[in-house]
Amino acid sequence: MRTTELFVKMVIDRWNGSILNLNKLLNALTDEQIEKEITIGKNSGRYLLGHLIAVHDEMLILLDMGEKLYPELLEPFIKQADKEATQSQSVAELREMWEKQNAHLQTKFEKMEPEEWFEKHSAVSEEDFAKEPQRNKLNIIITRTSHLQYHSGQIVLLN
Amino acid sequence: MRTTELFVKMVIDRWNGSILNLNKLLNALTDEQIEKEITIGKNSGRYLLGHLIAVHDEMLILLDMGEKLYPELLEPFIKQADKEATQSQSVAELREMWEKQNAHLQTKFEKMEPEEWFEKHSAVSEEDFAKEPQRNKLNIIITRTSHLQYHSGQIVLLN
Repeated sequence: MRTTELFVKMVIDRWNGSILNLNKLLNALTDEQIEKEITIGKNSGRYLLGHLIAVHDEMLILLDMGEKLYPELLEPFIKQADKEATQSQSVAELREMWEKQNAHLQTKFEKMEPEEWFEKHSAVSEEDFAKEPQRNKLNIIITRTSHLQYHSGQIVLLN
Repeated sequence: MRTTELFVKMVIDRWNGSILNLNKLLNALTDEQIEKEITIGKNSGRYLLGHLIAVHDEMLILLDMGEKLYPELLEPFIKQADKEATQSQSVAELREMWEKQNAHLQTKFEKMEPEEWFEKHSAVSEEDFAKEPQRNKLNIIITRTSHLQYHSGQIVLLN
């Protein structure tokens, strides 16, 4: 296997593994459990699920992979905090969005050639990218996997 | 920057960023807060801190970087669960171990040439590694960063 291909595989495998892990956690929880706060006064499972979908939707833009699926989630699940937000989406709706989004991202990822992952992401200028080549598309996957794991560690506490 | 060097930088930067993030969280917590359970009936902050140190100590072995610093943590913080374990280490002691360990790992990581990260880790056979070259040392950093983020998302709830 070529080095570039190998490296992409390592990063994407960890992303896929993290998604699978969270799917297992979500499948083990009822909608009522997901409605609850992780612990007193903290974010609810519903907020965290909406937040992950909203953040992963932003990835489509950062990775130049077309339009967002759920632009309506930006306001209630990223810009607003849980307690102040007016989120009308139910847990059942969020679960469906999450599954569709994962399938969509997977299809997009599979179309990428290994080298394309090392192109600049859309939020960095050509000038900055020349100086900081680590600000590439693959790095978006690395940082979003970290973010996903962080919140997965919280969602598991609902069980 | 060469591609191999760039990959390694991306992965090590994310590890370092995750360590820094957890250090900030730990510095914002008192020893008494870290003693507490994350939420009712779940692991304490102390258990999670000991667990992270024990897991990172295992990395030294997996990465062929010499002896463990704290072999005595394996039993109480990996083999045993929080509630059943007899952990004699105080939060203050664990904080000191954590800091020493991070400095030690950093020194070891800095000595590595980029290519060395793509060598097999110590828990995989030559035969399996030939078939699965992703089971290299750098992948240990990728998976342990995931693990660190997962538990960091829990430790932050103590605040």
